[in-house]
Amino acid sequence: MTKTITLAQGNGGEENRTLISELFFRHLGNETLARAEDAAVLETRGKIAFTTDSFTVSPIFFGGGDIGKLSVCGTCNDLAMMAAAPKYLTLAVMVEEGFESRKLEKIVRSIKKELAVNGAQVVAGDTKVMPKGTVDGIIVNTSGVGEVRAEGVGAGNLREGDSIVVSRDIGRHGATIFAGREGIELESELTSDCASLWPMVEKILEAGVMPHAMRDATRGGLAAVLNEWAESSGVCVEVDEGALPVSETVAGICEMLGFEATALANEGTFVLAVRPEDVERTVETLRSFPGNEAACVIGEVTRSYPERVVLRSEWGTKRFMELPTGELLPRIC
Amino acid sequence: MTKTITLAQGNGGEENRTLISELFFRHLGNETLARAEDAAVLETRGKIAFTTDSFTVSPIFFGGGDIGKLSVCGTCNDLAMMAAAPKYLTLAVMVEEGFESRKLEKIVRSIKKELAVNGAQVVAGDTKVMPKGTVDGIIVNTSGVGEVRAEGVGAGNLREGDSIVVSRDIGRHGATIFAGREGIELESELTSDCASLWPMVEKILEAGVMPHAMRDATRGGLAAVLNEWAESSGVCVEVDEGALPVSETVAGICEMLGFEATALANEGTFVLAVRPEDVERTVETLRSFPGNEAACVIGEVTRSYPERVVLRSEWGTKRFMELPTGELLPRIC
Repeated sequence: MTKTITLAQGNGGEENRTLISELFFRHLGNETLARAEDAAVLETRGKIAFTTDSFTVSPIFFGGGDIGKLSVCGTCNDLAMMAAAPKYLTLAVMVEEGFESRKLEKIVRSIKKELAVNGAQVVAGDTKVMPKGTVDGIIVNTSGVGEVRAEGVGAGNLREGDSIVVSRDIGRHGATIFAGREGIELESELTSDCASLWPMVEKILEAGVMPHAMRDATRGGLAAVLNEWAESSGVCVEVDEGALPVSETVAGICEMLGFEATALANEGTFVLAVRPEDVERTVETLRSFPGNEAACVIGEVTRSYPERVVLRSEWGTKRFMELPTGELLPRIC
Repeated sequence: MTKTITLAQGNGGEENRTLISELFFRHLGNETLARAEDAAVLETRGKIAFTTDSFTVSPIFFGGGDIGKLSVCGTCNDLAMMAAAPKYLTLAVMVEEGFESRKLEKIVRSIKKELAVNGAQVVAGDTKVMPKGTVDGIIVNTSGVGEVRAEGVGAGNLREGDSIVVSRDIGRHGATIFAGREGIELESELTSDCASLWPMVEKILEAGVMPHAMRDATRGGLAAVLNEWAESSGVCVEVDEGALPVSETVAGICEMLGFEATALANEGTFVLAVRPEDVERTVETLRSFPGNEAACVIGEVTRSYPERVVLRSEWGTKRFMELPTGELLPRIC
């Protein structure tokens, strides 16, 4: 392979075919992809879930992941949140002329690794090379098809009395990207929470839990998820501020920059609304996964302020947790 | 809506939700999209086809289409070429901060119009705003799921004696983009062939034709398709140079710039390999669609030079038609 990516490698002709076979097929090859032409032909069972996400994170390589891992986690997590097992992904890469080939290979290796965690395959792809200066480095789009394993999970299904559970400490991805980009020196190591959630969801469903809602708290953070749920279900979500799991490092970055951890993006942290009798099994299952030791109940669903999220401080005062506005940080994912 | 797109409109918070509801949902809304959360839940029948494509064409608006129309045609055509009816699309837009909102709306309207031609819906989406200078204008990714209506269509299924049919005159998209970008003055109007192919494929299947292979001749042009077929099927494809339908304007541009029309990209032109007894119905059906009056047989499958494409001149001489190399033109689609 050439040392850097050339325009000719996106031409639909010989160089393009060589790049695809030597890089993408070499690492991601499978029978379905080998048979695929303009599209892959698939046999699916039951209802399917279908989603898409484009990724433009900067820096491309960050503590705890890279754009390749992120692009598999992001799309597979969207499927997992609908209780769907990730099965088939498409991979569309837009790369800038002159991008280092070994970096691209590193990204493809990350993709391969994370696909295995999900039990998913890439079955179709697209590669475009953009002239220098028309895109900053690399953009990755993944779309995914999953098989729905449980029904009744939805933003509109929260019921009074449901407990709100968070799978781990919040705000790590946003804080990591910010620190990485701004060159902030940290006393302790901080890595993104970037991770695939399907293995956890699968175990929770196997434990007999029937979540009313699940959502990964990406752009907009926990605040965006809870506000959307409160609105969609016409309920009030009350959160105990003191129960919110935030690592010391993330809390420090938030204090320094005036951010709320609840508005920071996550890429491997999800929120669940579950019946009170399912709480223990849910939290126990989550905690059995490394990194998720802080999983806990952060609040519950009430009727006090319909369509609003209320934050209860440790001193008994209450305030609304609003939907984030403005732009904290572009190119977070 | 603001006059230009702002970074805040990609934040996952309030401004992002407003952009999505006022622009994307307003024009593309449907029941499935309304119910979709992190992913859309779908019921499909039988085998499905799944594909993806990213679009970065420059100029964004060109004779005969724009990036919106192109992004629906491109993905739906990939499904149609596998004899699959396009049903569900995802739409992921990456737009540069400062992009004009009315241009974005124009693109979304084109998307809506072309979806209707295919009988398809957008069921999930993603919107990211990139800081000024990190992407040139707009990039669109569409992924699609279709329902397979006929089996046995594939690059490896060509048989000796098959006729090679092309659906219309070739090279228009490539020539149009080139002329538009280079400011070439043309005596006659030239527009891209950009169009959705499913309506034609549907009619061909309804006419009882069972194509051995179908492929839209995008990047790499006719030459790339025929070379891939010859290789995959282990056959020789012999093409009559004099039978190739090329408009005078496209032929003129090719002569001026030293291109081969067979290597130019198309976005609404496809090639079929059909049994001799299906030729008449295939060509007649194609010609019944406006723009496709030049549909014709351009050659046949033989055993003379396995895995090669042979071009027969009008004087009886033969030469190989090679897979295109180098980069004719970046950002063609």
